[in-house]
Amino acid sequence: MGGDFGPRFIVPASISCLAESPSLHVVLVGQTALLEEIIARHPGVDRSRLHIKHAGEVVGTNERPSQALRGKPDSSMRVALELVRDGYAQACVSAGNTGALMALSRHLLKTLPGIDRPAMVTAIPTRTGSCHLLDLGANVDCSAEQLYQFAVMGVVAAEALGTPHPRVALLNIGTEEIKGNQQVKLAASLLQKGEGLNFIGYVEGDGLYRGEADVVVCDGFVGNILLKSSEGLVSLVSSRLEALFRSGVTSRLVGVLALPLLRRLQAELAPARHNGASFLGLQGIVVKSHGSAGQEGFQSAIRRAVVEVRENLPRRLHGRLEDLLL
Amino acid sequence: MGGDFGPRFIVPASISCLAESPSLHVVLVGQTALLEEIIARHPGVDRSRLHIKHAGEVVGTNERPSQALRGKPDSSMRVALELVRDGYAQACVSAGNTGALMALSRHLLKTLPGIDRPAMVTAIPTRTGSCHLLDLGANVDCSAEQLYQFAVMGVVAAEALGTPHPRVALLNIGTEEIKGNQQVKLAASLLQKGEGLNFIGYVEGDGLYRGEADVVVCDGFVGNILLKSSEGLVSLVSSRLEALFRSGVTSRLVGVLALPLLRRLQAELAPARHNGASFLGLQGIVVKSHGSAGQEGFQSAIRRAVVEVRENLPRRLHGRLEDLLL
Repeated sequence: MGGDFGPRFIVPASISCLAESPSLHVVLVGQTALLEEIIARHPGVDRSRLHIKHAGEVVGTNERPSQALRGKPDSSMRVALELVRDGYAQACVSAGNTGALMALSRHLLKTLPGIDRPAMVTAIPTRTGSCHLLDLGANVDCSAEQLYQFAVMGVVAAEALGTPHPRVALLNIGTEEIKGNQQVKLAASLLQKGEGLNFIGYVEGDGLYRGEADVVVCDGFVGNILLKSSEGLVSLVSSRLEALFRSGVTSRLVGVLALPLLRRLQAELAPARHNGASFLGLQGIVVKSHGSAGQEGFQSAIRRAVVEVRENLPRRLHGRLEDLLL
Repeated sequence: MGGDFGPRFIVPASISCLAESPSLHVVLVGQTALLEEIIARHPGVDRSRLHIKHAGEVVGTNERPSQALRGKPDSSMRVALELVRDGYAQACVSAGNTGALMALSRHLLKTLPGIDRPAMVTAIPTRTGSCHLLDLGANVDCSAEQLYQFAVMGVVAAEALGTPHPRVALLNIGTEEIKGNQQVKLAASLLQKGEGLNFIGYVEGDGLYRGEADVVVCDGFVGNILLKSSEGLVSLVSSRLEALFRSGVTSRLVGVLALPLLRRLQAELAPARHNGASFLGLQGIVVKSHGSAGQEGFQSAIRRAVVEVRENLPRRLHGRLEDLLL
């Protein structure tokens, strides 16, 4: 029921994913009558793989996590996570309130042994491919130990998603040893000791986009600012380019040809909007789709959840954490 | 003598600025023989306004600030700042080692009363114009009081540079009151009490580029990551667009027409590289040109210094700080 568009996009996204993955089952959690009404607009849906679980309440976009936790026992978000907790579903995908989803996920699914708090991760594009950036905002202040945990989790996620022996780096304001705050410096010394980790040291904001690392670790404050400012910058660049292309006769001609390319690039460069972010460190799989994601974005989030189920990401994490955590 | 290109770009940049500003005098500080040699390549220079002050040493790019402070009494950076301290020059512009320049500036020029540490500020482009972002990396960990001081300094600088009654905001990971770390929340409550400040609350990474505020305040860790990642992203976008434009026949045609537009945009969107950053909160004017700035970039930095001298920015700051500091 969550996100800016709710079931209007989530239902068709689910139906499309069912068509592309013959072994996928989707349980839509929310107000049955509304969900049935939207499903009815899509003839030929395989209802043997599309289920509905009724939930009468909805967590609001601006609700505090504590409200979602204590009130609303019948919210769609809580009911969906309970399906994961109880083994009826292998993953939960939501476009709803991020803070509430994190709080409910921790409460209902619990974190893996050794993990203090889960982190949010997404893959962002770089010159050479992509890079897994975490944390994206779940943890405002982070200790060196937490940054270390994020690094380990990011490495395992990157491996599961197809990058063998990923290079992991700490995001910092310089690459020399003396740069950065205490937490970052301490995390660096922990990572240097982490056996089997391909720790390459510090990476700066520009190095991240140059593709210097496969996993980049920072606290949630920095990660969130980086991700959102990047999103804002891409849409600024697009609007400037569109304006340039519309400003003269030649430019206008160029624009007609260039605008579709721009749109494609914009989608690729707004990865959170496009692909959603995974919660890492839980005893279960939760993918957060961007609140303003359209149908295509929500489909990407479902696909990400499918990959994580196939790779059994929580179990892989659990195994590596046992070896690597301090 | 500093920066990736040293006097090779700094000398011609200075000569161009002399041509555009008839009242400007430039003192080149560095190795006389080398400087004379480069000047000699430019016939017709008005030597009555282009002076040389010899300095035998150079601060290296990777030198620690403490080395620049304690060793090298005859470095070009130190000698240039001494000229400002002793009233022979009204501003210092350098493309050298940022940390060393900050340490020497604080040591030689001192901070204004009430200012703990200077901040670095630059104007970055937004959808609606531009926005003054500070701190950009001079202060890694910042107290709420420092963030408050940065806000006041940013407002005065924005006013001096032509924005009356600027809207000032704190960079945060949400716009609700409960969001953010302790320093940011506390700084917000200080700013709410600051009389005559047009404090509009929190702004997020995307809101910054949407132009929601004229002055955006954050600690130097966050500001540096934001600036450098933005720089990296713009060059990623440019290279992707170039690749797209080169990939097919139609696209290639588009590319020939679009690439010059792209280059212009790239320069505009890499403001630090292009315009340099000011040190605010010193008893003197210091502008840091980007280490990799070309001639055009160094000229922009000189122009910025000229405006700050004309507006007497340190005195304006001093006046407002007396009213507003706690």
